[in-house]
Parts: sequence; structure tokens; C-alpha cells
Amino acid sequence: MPLLTEAAKGVYVIAVTPFSDNGDVDWTSVDRMVDFYQDKGVTGLTILGQLGEAPKLTAEESREIARRVIARANVPVVVGVTAPGLAPMRELADSVMEMGAAGVMVAPPWTTRTDDQAYAFYAVVGEALGQTPFVLQDYPLTTNVTIVPKVIDRIIRDVPNCVMLKHEDWPGLGKISALRASSDRGETRRISILCGNGGLFLPEEMGRGADGAMTGFCYPEMMVGVVDAYGGGDVERAHDLFDAYLPLARYEQQQGLGLAARKYVLAKRGVIASPALRKPGPSLSAADIKDVERLLSRQARRLSEIGA
Amino acid sequence: MPLLTEAAKGVYVIAVTPFSDNGDVDWTSVDRMVDFYQDKGVTGLTILGQLGEAPKLTAEESREIARRVIARANVPVVVGVTAPGLAPMRELADSVMEMGAAGVMVAPPWTTRTDDQAYAFYAVVGEALGQTPFVLQDYPLTTNVTIVPKVIDRIIRDVPNCVMLKHEDWPGLGKISALRASSDRGETRRISILCGNGGLFLPEEMGRGADGAMTGFCYPEMMVGVVDAYGGGDVERAHDLFDAYLPLARYEQQQGLGLAARKYVLAKRGVIASPALRKPGPSLSAADIKDVERLLSRQARRLSEIGA
Amino acid sequence: MPLLTEAAKGVYVIAVTPFSDNGDVDWTSVDRMVDFYQDKGVTGLTILGQLGEAPKLTAEESREIARRVIARANVPVVVGVTAPGLAPMRELADSVMEMGAAGVMVAPPWTTRTDDQAYAFYAVVGEALGQTPFVLQDYPLTTNVTIVPKVIDRIIRDVPNCVMLKHEDWPGLGKISALRASSDRGETRRISILCGNGGLFLPEEMGRGADGAMTGFCYPEMMVGVVDAYGGGDVERAHDLFDAYLPLARYEQQQGLGLAARKYVLAKRGVIASPALRKPGPSLSAADIKDVERLLSRQARRLSEIGA
Amino acid sequence: MPLLTEAAKGVYVIAVTPFSDNGDVDWTSVDRMVDFYQDKGVTGLTILGQLGEAPKLTAEESREIARRVIARANVPVVVGVTAPGLAPMRELADSVMEMGAAGVMVAPPWTTRTDDQAYAFYAVVGEALGQTPFVLQDYPLTTNVTIVPKVIDRIIRDVPNCVMLKHEDWPGLGKISALRASSDRGETRRISILCGNGGLFLPEEMGRGADGAMTGFCYPEMMVGVVDAYGGGDVERAHDLFDAYLPLARYEQQQGLGLAARKYVLAKRGVIASPALRKPGPSLSAADIKDVERLLSRQARRLSEIGA
Repeated sequence: MPLLTEAAKGVYVIAVTPFSDNGDVDWTSVDRMVDFYQDKGVTGLTILGQLGEAPKLTAEESREIARRVIARANVPVVVGVTAPGLAPMRELADSVMEMGAAGVMVAPPWTTRTDDQAYAFYAVVGEALGQTPFVLQDYPLTTNVTIVPKVIDRIIRDVPNCVMLKHEDWPGLGKISALRASSDRGETRRISILCGNGGLFLPEEMGRGADGAMTGFCYPEMMVGVVDAYGGGDVERAHDLFDAYLPLARYEQQQGLGLAARKYVLAKRGVIASPALRKPGPSLSAADIKDVERLLSRQARRLSEIGA
Repeated sequence: MPLLTEAAKGVYVIAVTPFSDNGDVDWTSVDRMVDFYQDKGVTGLTILGQLGEAPKLTAEESREIARRVIARANVPVVVGVTAPGLAPMRELADSVMEMGAAGVMVAPPWTTRTDDQAYAFYAVVGEALGQTPFVLQDYPLTTNVTIVPKVIDRIIRDVPNCVMLKHEDWPGLGKISALRASSDRGETRRISILCGNGGLFLPEEMGRGADGAMTGFCYPEMMVGVVDAYGGGDVERAHDLFDAYLPLARYEQQQGLGLAARKYVLAKRGVIASPALRKPGPSLSAADIKDVERLLSRQARRLSEIGA
Repeated sequence: MPLLTEAAKGVYVIAVTPFSDNGDVDWTSVDRMVDFYQDKGVTGLTILGQLGEAPKLTAEESREIARRVIARANVPVVVGVTAPGLAPMRELADSVMEMGAAGVMVAPPWTTRTDDQAYAFYAVVGEALGQTPFVLQDYPLTTNVTIVPKVIDRIIRDVPNCVMLKHEDWPGLGKISALRASSDRGETRRISILCGNGGLFLPEEMGRGADGAMTGFCYPEMMVGVVDAYGGGDVERAHDLFDAYLPLARYEQQQGLGLAARKYVLAKRGVIASPALRKPGPSLSAADIKDVERLLSRQARRLSEIGA
Repeated sequence: MPLLTEAAKGVYVIAVTPFSDNGDVDWTSVDRMVDFYQDKGVTGLTILGQLGEAPKLTAEESREIARRVIARANVPVVVGVTAPGLAPMRELADSVMEMGAAGVMVAPPWTTRTDDQAYAFYAVVGEALGQTPFVLQDYPLTTNVTIVPKVIDRIIRDVPNCVMLKHEDWPGLGKISALRASSDRGETRRISILCGNGGLFLPEEMGRGADGAMTGFCYPEMMVGVVDAYGGGDVERAHDLFDAYLPLARYEQQQGLGLAARKYVLAKRGVIASPALRKPGPSLSAADIKDVERLLSRQARRLSEIGA
């Protein structure tokens, strides 16, 4: 499998982790999910992310899921390897790269406070990973760490295997503009920027120079459609598609509960067998399900109105 | 002016603080803004809130704005009086109640950590305020304080002048359901619940038993329309209206920048003379303005399609 | 009264706010406290600090305390003016400078996250204060804001009225060393560095180049003695004195309860009439008082052993 | 090896992780360290703790260290098994219990905010661990989680395998008093309470009913001596010993740097071959070493004065 590079574009969907109702990993659903995402046109897959249920897996399960997804996928697979120390991070990274991963993703520890700490963290990460390309995961809402554009620029300049930014700051449109201005002026490499936050700002992010999305909204076809329409120059079409899915995407943007809603829809779509989260985790109430069902039927109607 | 009670309903819009380009309070715009909100059908006004620019005002300016708004408004005015100590809080509360405010709003200090601390804080607040009715502002994203439903229930039971919840937890639909279940079972008073978060979950919140909105989206007619449609039983109409405004409401949900976008639109609508925030504060970039303008023109088109 | 300058040295004790048992400000104790601190040899007084009970005062009480202390003191008085916005901060600063304060002290807002935000905050503070000299209060444990040495250096370079650092980072010895190295190399002005944290690292801080202490330990004679012994070159004597008081200084280092212990001792020493904190605030339990009494009697014995 | 019970008393020293200068685990020093701690009279050993360097170990190294320490030790060994999810926590716990550990220790995730979340976390932990006894690690300064006494009481009541509290709240003397009052009234089991925070409040903690210490101060003989003197009823002797070591114990209480100081002293004492922390980690500056050396020579003098 080719390695991840600065030229990566499109949608690297964040995969869920399918469990059976009893909490075991559901391997059949893992396979079906890989096929589903590829059918919908994603460019890549991202697994074992922070916000999924990766932290609930044993080390052995994590490795087994990586092996299974990488073996089945025809697209590049990025694996989250964030760990509390360099040694366990490198251990997991080496192991998944050997399996054929395209690259790894690393978020900073939540104790990072200053510009120099953030820079130093990624400098040692880059060195520890050696030849492995990695994604800088910038997600202040979860990591509690703010990394300003000039620190990211400094990392890009000094750490050659940092090839992608998973952009998830909020508000973050100005950050994309600032990073693109730096590379346009030739001050830094132009790395790939894929955006998170459930896709909630995707059309505007594309307008600022993002290369696509890296997030897990339960209709990956929205993200693929928006990115394609933008790439084809049809900005209004990108917004039409986006607006049709926005009420549901917004509903998914509820921490914890949003993942339960996402799994509910994926189960309803036949992708995964059970909507269950592994314990401890929330489940949808009857009122939540009623909300989601209304949003789904309104979404279907609106999509048909705009001919999508 | 009658006092705020548990029966309050509708939209208590969070007012912005209008400044001239040079940073002075713009009194003419203050007046025009009061008229504008009333013309759009709001039920009440909320001023000197946490997220507005109240902390940038001198004590004298705060009091003068309260005096001006209360004198001009024909609807009840709620005044934010959150302060680092009880004495200054009570001082401001007494002063605005004397001017004719309907009630005050209080957020917990960000150092509050435990259930008992949250309860104790509102118990002493309630006692310190005496006869003045107050709004419990539950806004974890800004205050960093989580108050679970059973603690709110305990406050409602023991603190008689707590008459309203400004509900701004996220996700928070389950919280509304829990609080309504308590009062339906007769375990607590049924107090007024008005919702914040820029209105981003307003139709679903109404579905859970909220009484309306208390937030500052730049099109108060959206909130008034959604609340009215819901009250009239036309849930789909409520969603149609909501969906038309959602792309802009979402854009306003960017901390800091969102307020700049809100003021930009209010200035464009002729409500306030200048979109300027008092220093220190962000301003929109050319790219931000382009985003907002596209959203405005798409919104106008969509509103006309749905006959609104 | 002369203004605060970079040459300030010695002990600027953080004064408590004396209240009667009923919660009123106890003006007689305010006067006696000023006299007591001066009798013990302090070089200056610091009032209305973050950790004292200043936030519990009304605006009028704050101003009245400042007026009273400044009028009675023969030493320079620094006044804490930290506020959520520039306008109220400047308002209080102008008012106390007119009363004869020597300077003011400003802590950053707890939402400050990045190097540039910290710098920008003090740049606008410096401009807003005009000719008034100010103390940069660097207290991460309370403000949740980390300001690295190079950012402080940048502030010192660009903001001429920043004349003192209240150093309260922990661990922070390396920070003093770094700041002194910068000024020794001629890269920045050498400003005054007075240390906080209850004096818990005072001898080592003096060894790194601090100019004294700015904290509120209930035996100001310890701080005066340590600073004098260090200044006179008798490092071992400085440590002997320090060690004798350390068990109590450590006990005072309990957030919240420490202030109650401090007031207990000051009341026992006849400085303030009542040990009461204004509500809401903790009070010592019988077990706490037993602890403090044992520490006091052991301290007296040890002081006599070392001839102090 | 017998299992940990509520009756545990004495000093369960927190062991460091010895590395060579090149960052490899130094197995010879691991053995020597176990012997050293036992020679100094500790009752138990605690390994793979949060604040040590356990997060920097690979899974394989962690297991190997546990195996080595458990095999060599004649005293009970408690193993830290805190992990981001239940499955990996249980995996490590099962593995070390099979090796002969006496019990495990679990800290709450830093996202825990409310009383109910803290309770629920330990309820599922207790269930997941089955027959394995565990230590509730209550360390707000690091975990950012506050657990009030009544929540701990609730956990003690409902979770039978919670047999020990590692008490590390600060201030926390009142917490010990409250927990002991509950069990004295027969409302809860009396579990073992061992105290952390570097031993900085050890004599007072013993006075409130603690059963000993669980922390890593580089002179374990101080903790053993204080606990023994207290147990023997000689409170003043306990304080004399404590005071002699306090200046150094306080110096060790600097986050990050304190561990470097601890390893420096352990290396100087011949326990570990190298004072090196695994990267990334701080090292002592020349000025830090000068500080530590002065404290050591003053400490030796003082110990000889008091005949210890």
C-alpha cells in the first residue's frame, strides 16, 4: 500500500467500531462497513480514532481490527496511534505500518499548554516515527490543546514526516486561511488539510483551501458529494447538498450521544448489525430516536427535491 | 414592570451591546435595537449576558445600558448580574430591579466542581437576592461547570426565587426531558426553560418541553417563528423555518467570530450603526464576509421557496 | 507617593481583608493590620489581590479599602485591578492611582491559551493603563494560564509600564533563572521579581535572582528575615529561619482553608479582631485548629533554639 | 501472595522506574530498588503509577517490570492499571494478578465531571475487576476530578472490592476526617487510607485517621519513621522527623522537576544507576543540583541534631 503524502485529497472517513449487542467486536460488520464506505466513494479510511471507541479496545483487539480493515480495504488506511508515551505510540505505529497502513495519526497530550510544548511534542513524535508519515490531529475541543498556525507552520518546516493536518479547531476557518497563506508564500510545505467536526463547516472549509474531510458523519456520500462539487467548481451545488444533510449532521454533533445516533443510522442503513456502543456508553432514548427518524424523513424529502 | 415568573414563555432575545467604531457605547443604536427586537415579536429582552460584551463595560456603562433598555422596552427585561462575589452581584441586582428589571440571571463561578458546590452556590444566591426572581444560567461550554438534572431539581425545590433555567448544556435534550419528568411527577415546581446555544437545537428542544428560546441569533424572527409554529402544533413548519436559517445559525456558532458575524448582519439589517466589537475583539476577514454574504443570499432564496 | 519601578525590592506583603463576624468590613482592623505589617518591616503592601477576598467586595467597598490603606500606609501600596474587561480595569486603576497607589497588578483572563494571546493581553493592558506602572501576575495554579519566559521577555521589551513580575509559577525556579539570564545578556530590561506561593520556595528563589516576596504568609517577619539574610550574604541563616517557619507555611498552602488558617493566626496575634472569612468561605474545624496550635508551639520552640 | 485488604497499613512506597542513560529499562537497578525499599522498612510497593514514568513504557515493558518486581519482593505489590477503557484495564489487571500482585490501582478519567459519573465509573470498574481488590486513586491535581466524601462513601458501600483509598486531594485533611466519621458511625466499611502528595501532610494525615503513606519521597525512612512514631503514640517525635525532611520533601513537590530531583537523590544513594528520566522528561540544571545538595547537607545535619 502506498504511503500517505502531502498530496492526499478527498474523504478519509472516520470508521466506527462495530460491536455486537453483547459488546464483542462484530467482525462481519467490520467487513461490511469497509465495503460500504468504499461503495460511497471515500478516498481513504481512518481507524482507531480518539472519539470513536478505540480506547475501549484491548491492545489485541486494536491490532486485530487494524489488520482486518487494512487487509480488506482497497484505499489507504490511516491508524490513530495516540498514546500517553512515545514508546507505546511507536510500538503500535510500527505494528500497523507492517500490516500495510498508509500512515498514522497523533493527537497531543491534554497537558500540553504552551507553543513550545506543542512544537516539542511533534518534533519528538516525528523523530520517533522515523519513516512513517503522520497526521497532526488538531482537536482543541477534545484535547484541550490549542495549536496556533505559526506553531503548525514550524512543525511543518522541521518535521518532514508530518504530511497532513486533521483540522478540527473551532472556529477554524481562519486557521486554514493562515496555513494556506504560509505555503502560498513559499514559507512552508503545502501539506494536506482534511477537516473534522462532523463536516459541519465543510463547504466553507473547502473555500479556504482544505483538501477534503476526515470525519465520520453517517452519510459519507454528503462529504464525497460536497468535496466533488467543490472540486468541480459548483459551489452552490456543494451548499445545496450540504444544507440537505445539515440538520442531521448538527444532531450528530452532540458529544457521546452523537456517536449513538451515528451508529443508529448506520445500523438502519444495514451497514452494521447492532447500534450498540461498548460499555460504558450512552444509548438513544425513545425521544432521541423520534428526533432522528423525523430528521431522516425530512432529509430524504429534501434530497429528492434537489435531485440528489 | 411585572416580575419574571415560572410561567414565562417565548423568546427572550439576548441583546448585543452596540458600540461605535471608536468603542463608545452607541446609545442611538441601543434604542433602535430595542425597537427592532420588539418589532420581530420577542417576548422579552436579556441584557448584560456573559457571552455578549458586558464584561468589557465599566460599572457605570452597565448600569446606564440597563436603565436605557428598561426605560424603552415594553417587554420584560432580564439582566445578567454574574459577578465574582455575592456582594457585587447583589449590588447590581438591587440596582437594576429598582430600575424596573423583571429579573436577573446568574451563572456559576468556573471553579465550581461538585454537585454540592453547585447547589450551595445557588442556595446562597437565592438567599442574597431576596425577593428578586432569577434565571439559573446553565452553560457548561463557557462556565466549565456541569450541573446535572437532580441538582437543578434540588435547587428548584429549595430556592423559591429560581424561576427560570437558561438551558445551554450540549448535548442537553435529555436534560430537558429529565427536568420535565420531575415536575410532571410532581416532585418539583415546573419552572420556565428557555434554550440557548444560538438556537441550534430549538425545534427538538421545544419537542422536549422547553418554553422557548433565550439566545441571540441575528434573525430573532426564526426563533419567534419556530416557537409559534410549535405552540400551534405545526411541527413540520417549525422545522421548515428552522432549516432555512440553520446554515447561518451554525456559522454564528463560532466562539468569538460568531458575535462578529451576528453584529455584521445586524448592522446590514440597519439595526446597529457599526458592526464593531469593543477591543479586544475579533473582526470578520474578507473571506468571512464572503461566507456570510453567500449564506444570506441562499437563506433569502430558501425562505422565499417555503413562503416565509 | 512615588510610583512603583523596576528597582522595587523586599517584601510587598499581600494583605488580608479583615471582616467582623457579621461579614462587614472591619475598618479598625484594617488600620491595625497596616501598622502591623509595617512594624514587621515590609517594604510595601499589596491589596485587593485575586486570592484574598477582594472578589467578595462591592465596588464601593474595594475603593474604600484602597483609600483607607493608602492613606494610612507609609510604604508603597500596589492594588489588584484584574477585571473581565479593559474598561472596568482602567476605571479602577485610574481611581486608585488618584488616591496615591504606587502601581496596580493584573492577572490574565483564564481563557488565555496561547503565547500570542498572553502577549496581546498585556500589550493592550499596558496601553490602556497609560502612565500607570503595573505588576504582571503570573499565577498558573489559579488563572490556569501558562506564560513562558520568552513571552514575559517579549512583554518586558514592548510594554514599558510593566515593571514587576509577581512570580507564582510552580515549579518556577527555572523561570526566574531564564528571565535573569535574558536581562543579564542585555536582551530585556531587568524588572523586579517578587515571589508568591506563600513563600514556600523563598530561599531558593532569592538564590535565582528574585528581589523578594509578594505573598501573605501570616508571619511576614519570616519573609523579611529571609530576604534580609540573603541580601546580607548569609544563606544558611536564611534557610534556618525559613525552615523554622516552613511547617506552618506549608499548612497555609491549602487552597481556601489556608486563608482561614492565616486569619486564625493573625487574629491570635492581635492583628485582626475576627478570623472570619466573608461568606461563602470555609472556617477551621476543631481538628484544624489543633493542627495549627501544635505547629505554632513547635515553631516557637524552634525559633528560640535558633535564636530568632 | 495474599490479596490487599481494608486492613492494610504502613508505607506502600511508589517506586520509580529506573532507566539507563540511553533510555532502556535498567533491570539491575529495578532489583536493587526493590531491595532498598524493603531494607528501609516499607510495608508494600506500588508500581506503574500515574505520576511515575509508566505511561512511557510499552505494554511489554510494563508487564515485564511488574513480573520482575513481584517476583523479587517479599511485600505486597500494588499495580497501577489506569487505562482509557475498561477492556485494556481489565486485561492488564488480570495479567498482573496472575503474576502475584496484591491488588491494582485505578484513577478516574479526566473527563469525569459529576458525582454520578465518578460513582458510575468505580461501579463498573469494580464489576469489571471481579475478585481483584483495588485502590481508588483520588488525585484531583493530576486527574482534574473531584470526588467528595459522600461519593467515596457510596462507592465503599456498593463496591466490595474497593479496599483502599490513595488519598491525594489537597487540601484533604477534612476529607479523611469525614470518611473516618462515616465508618465510625457504622455507615460504611472502614477501608484503608494511605496518603500521597509526597508525604507533605503526613503527620497531620495520621492524626486524622490515615493508615499510612503511599507516595514516593526519596527517603522512605521518613515515611516509615513518621508512621511508626505515630503508631507508637509519639506525635512530637513524628513531627521532629518530618520537619527534618520537609525542606527536601517540599522541593520534590515540583511537578516534573520533582521526579528528576527524586531520581537524583536515589542515584546518589546508590539505589539506581542513572538519574535519567526517559524522554521526554526534564533534567536538573546546575542550579537545581546546587539547591538539592544544600538541602541534603542541611538535612543530614538536622537529623544528627535530633538523633535520627
